[in-house]
Amino acid sequence: MAKQEDIFKNVVSHAKEYGFIFPSSEVYDGLSAVYDYAQNGVELKKNIREYWWKSMVQMNENIVGLDAAILMHPTTWKASGHVDAFNDPLIDNKDSKKRYRADVLVEDYAEKINQKAQKEIEKARARFGDAFNEEEFVTTNARVIEYLSKYKEILSRLAKGMSDDLQDVKALIEELEIADPETGSRNWTDVKQFNLMFGTKLGASADSAMDLYLRPETAQGIFVNFLNVQKSGRMKVPFGIAQTGKAFRNEIVARQFIFRMREFEQMEMQFFVRPGEEMKWYHHWKEARLNWHLSLGLGKENYRFHDHEKLAHYANAAADIEFNFPFGFKELEGIHSRTDFDLKAHEQYSGRKLQYFDPELNENYVPYVVETSVGLDRMFLAVFATSLQEEALEDGSTRTVLKLPAVLAPTKAAVLPLVKKDGLPEISKKIIEDLKWDFNVAYDEKDAVGRRYRRQDALGTPFCITVDHQTLEDETVTIRHRDTMKQDRVKITELRAIIENEVSMKNWLMKM
Amino acid sequence: MAKQEDIFKNVVSHAKEYGFIFPSSEVYDGLSAVYDYAQNGVELKKNIREYWWKSMVQMNENIVGLDAAILMHPTTWKASGHVDAFNDPLIDNKDSKKRYRADVLVEDYAEKINQKAQKEIEKARARFGDAFNEEEFVTTNARVIEYLSKYKEILSRLAKGMSDDLQDVKALIEELEIADPETGSRNWTDVKQFNLMFGTKLGASADSAMDLYLRPETAQGIFVNFLNVQKSGRMKVPFGIAQTGKAFRNEIVARQFIFRMREFEQMEMQFFVRPGEEMKWYHHWKEARLNWHLSLGLGKENYRFHDHEKLAHYANAAADIEFNFPFGFKELEGIHSRTDFDLKAHEQYSGRKLQYFDPELNENYVPYVVETSVGLDRMFLAVFATSLQEEALEDGSTRTVLKLPAVLAPTKAAVLPLVKKDGLPEISKKIIEDLKWDFNVAYDEKDAVGRRYRRQDALGTPFCITVDHQTLEDETVTIRHRDTMKQDRVKITELRAIIENEVSMKNWLMKM
Repeated sequence: MAKQEDIFKNVVSHAKEYGFIFPSSEVYDGLSAVYDYAQNGVELKKNIREYWWKSMVQMNENIVGLDAAILMHPTTWKASGHVDAFNDPLIDNKDSKKRYRADVLVEDYAEKINQKAQKEIEKARARFGDAFNEEEFVTTNARVIEYLSKYKEILSRLAKGMSDDLQDVKALIEELEIADPETGSRNWTDVKQFNLMFGTKLGASADSAMDLYLRPETAQGIFVNFLNVQKSGRMKVPFGIAQTGKAFRNEIVARQFIFRMREFEQMEMQFFVRPGEEMKWYHHWKEARLNWHLSLGLGKENYRFHDHEKLAHYANAAADIEFNFPFGFKELEGIHSRTDFDLKAHEQYSGRKLQYFDPELNENYVPYVVETSVGLDRMFLAVFATSLQEEALEDGSTRTVLKLPAVLAPTKAAVLPLVKKDGLPEISKKIIEDLKWDFNVAYDEKDAVGRRYRRQDALGTPFCITVDHQTLEDETVTIRHRDTMKQDRVKITELRAIIENEVSMKNWLMKM
Repeated sequence: MAKQEDIFKNVVSHAKEYGFIFPSSEVYDGLSAVYDYAQNGVELKKNIREYWWKSMVQMNENIVGLDAAILMHPTTWKASGHVDAFNDPLIDNKDSKKRYRADVLVEDYAEKINQKAQKEIEKARARFGDAFNEEEFVTTNARVIEYLSKYKEILSRLAKGMSDDLQDVKALIEELEIADPETGSRNWTDVKQFNLMFGTKLGASADSAMDLYLRPETAQGIFVNFLNVQKSGRMKVPFGIAQTGKAFRNEIVARQFIFRMREFEQMEMQFFVRPGEEMKWYHHWKEARLNWHLSLGLGKENYRFHDHEKLAHYANAAADIEFNFPFGFKELEGIHSRTDFDLKAHEQYSGRKLQYFDPELNENYVPYVVETSVGLDRMFLAVFATSLQEEALEDGSTRTVLKLPAVLAPTKAAVLPLVKKDGLPEISKKIIEDLKWDFNVAYDEKDAVGRRYRRQDALGTPFCITVDHQTLEDETVTIRHRDTMKQDRVKITELRAIIENEVSMKNWLMKM
């Protein structure tokens, strides 16, 4: 089996080579931690977004959509706490002028010690083979014990410094003699908080341009519109508001391709419930969201819940759905019981009531909120990386195949004339003319048909339709299935129904 | 007939009352010239976007999509000319500290003089009735001649000052004694150029944060990705790249609801052609884009071409498709022959070749570009405002009906139990359970059925399905058509096909 690191490299290069994701502004050597979705990526991303939207808004009578602007009144971010507390602890190296996240410097240092322990374990495993007992080894081998206890001690002191006093983190950096990874210098400034919101100015008047922020999350757009939606839509609690859209964070250390970007897209649903009923709905949405993910068939073993022990200031319960990315299990979606924190904060800062009159209880209250929030780009990465497979074939060769869920595939079918003559291209184009009203279909006449199959495999196209000389006689074609490589001979008139059955969102949603 | 101004006010208030558009951050008294799309607006906007996307990307074998980031490398905007030349001429009032667009101050002043002439014309028309000859009147009445010549003189001097020397515009303001509209002060600063791009900072290193801009147009995202798309997609010239996405302009004078916003969305397609063939494609796309608009059935009389006489520095031909908005004919879409200006500029600034090898000509060249660019928000306003109608009914009452093209309607059908008992709500919900996989459907049981029809009319829902006592006996329902108000008795099993036939994008696209 390939190493995780190699798998990930392969994902990134396949994404570029086959037109899924390009570095942003690559002609100018790129913009760090920003990516563009290319011709196939944009379709895959659109399909994921639509699959989410349909399952949320179209399927649920009591969930409606919203599309709030990226620019919001700046008081929004005072009320939400982002102006005061959405910070990363930064440290500058005085010699190199490089800036780092102080906590990441320490974490990286600690990880190196952990790696030393892991190496000892691997060496012992290689030596003892089947007889190796890891549990016993790590509790008896002096060197491993030392590494691991040092590792744990550093992380625990880091966590304490982060919550109590950032200068303890600086002291830790100095004590461990951590150097600038690029230059080796140990000449550090103090640790300072750095706000992660991108700022900009609305130049409306001469003396006082208004300071704005690019929204760092989409949730607040839902909260400030809560009462307008409820009233104009005559919504009854419990009800939800769903939204997809861009958000921006000025990450200092942005890593792992599209997993953590400075510009990213969220798919969020805020569910407004009666106070006291939030835990029921929290559990409901945890389960419902996992089922949504499972419906795509990427494998149950790739998902797990991570229940938060330490809760954010606004939450009384929180869990992540973690996915098995090429770099390990990481957060894909968050389900948070946010209480009435946000609505109350907006009441306080705006001086307006954000209350709901419950006709059944005959009572006014500020609803509690249960949030489901999934990163669209992370979802893309999860689907893409898991679908990308190298398959050994019977003849000893291998093929690269992108086994995307057919409902999400950018192109649903490619139509291929066996040869570029005898009227086969014309029949192929006629088939496309007929299918293109319903599906994204592609035409390819270049290279031998086997190579064209491989190319469509790499693009994730579920079906290849091949037009050959028999087609001239009986109006049949072969239809080849991406995953099994099996080919069936079918009538041209049957194609639409065969494709529709495999790719229709309706059929996939029914699996939920 | 209602006045234009009243119609427009009605559009804005209907948009808010029925959950199409809210002022952004309204709880904080709004953010000027920024709007949020509410629960019905988001669906209408999504449907317009999808209708455009399908017609561009899915229907055309040689057009592919793209989704470039809002944040781009800043050199992009040097190359495009936006850093140096994307300016508005601003003037500050020294007493009030208010800032204005100098050209708008002069235009508003000139318009007042024009209005005086128009008033004289209207008075004469009222006096002479059918005998009135406007053409003769404006060339013989001394007062009207004076107003109109003054009006034209001011505009021509303004145009000259804007292109030659901004201080001539200031001199004009002083000569005409134009005062601050809010305070009456005439104490003006000089006229200065103000860049319309929103700036922000990417905080990557201690001493040199990188100055970024929020993209003021989506086109450049296509140009910088041109070669990556062409190569990874094996595209052959002529081919197009289509994109929808947000852009931002720090407008000083933003007006007319969602027509000119600081944050807006574009739907653009850049078509890459052989040098010398651009005029053929320019004419092709002018016609094709008009046909797309006409397919929505808002009325041929509401569109006209405006061919540009004065061309932008990058264009060798340009036209607008203008639409008859509630405030008159204004630009809805632009079709521009942009030559090789953009690609050559990016070659120059990046030092990289952006050339295409044409296998038929056996030759390398920088393609020419024909652009089609439509404002999604303007398209929304065009569709919404034109569809909003007050209709006199036979019984002497009026109804408000939003005659949206059915393909774009947020909700395709509402299911209404005649009464809230006898099992009718249960049957209604069963119908919804069946239809919701294919369409956005709503349920409404509140108020008399007549009022519910009116509400769905105002929301633009093409069909109301009413469940009554006869349904219990024979599994039929009535289906009411929004525009004709006609009701048919049909079997429940026929509903899907009836709705599908009217709302399917496929059927609408076939009208193009």
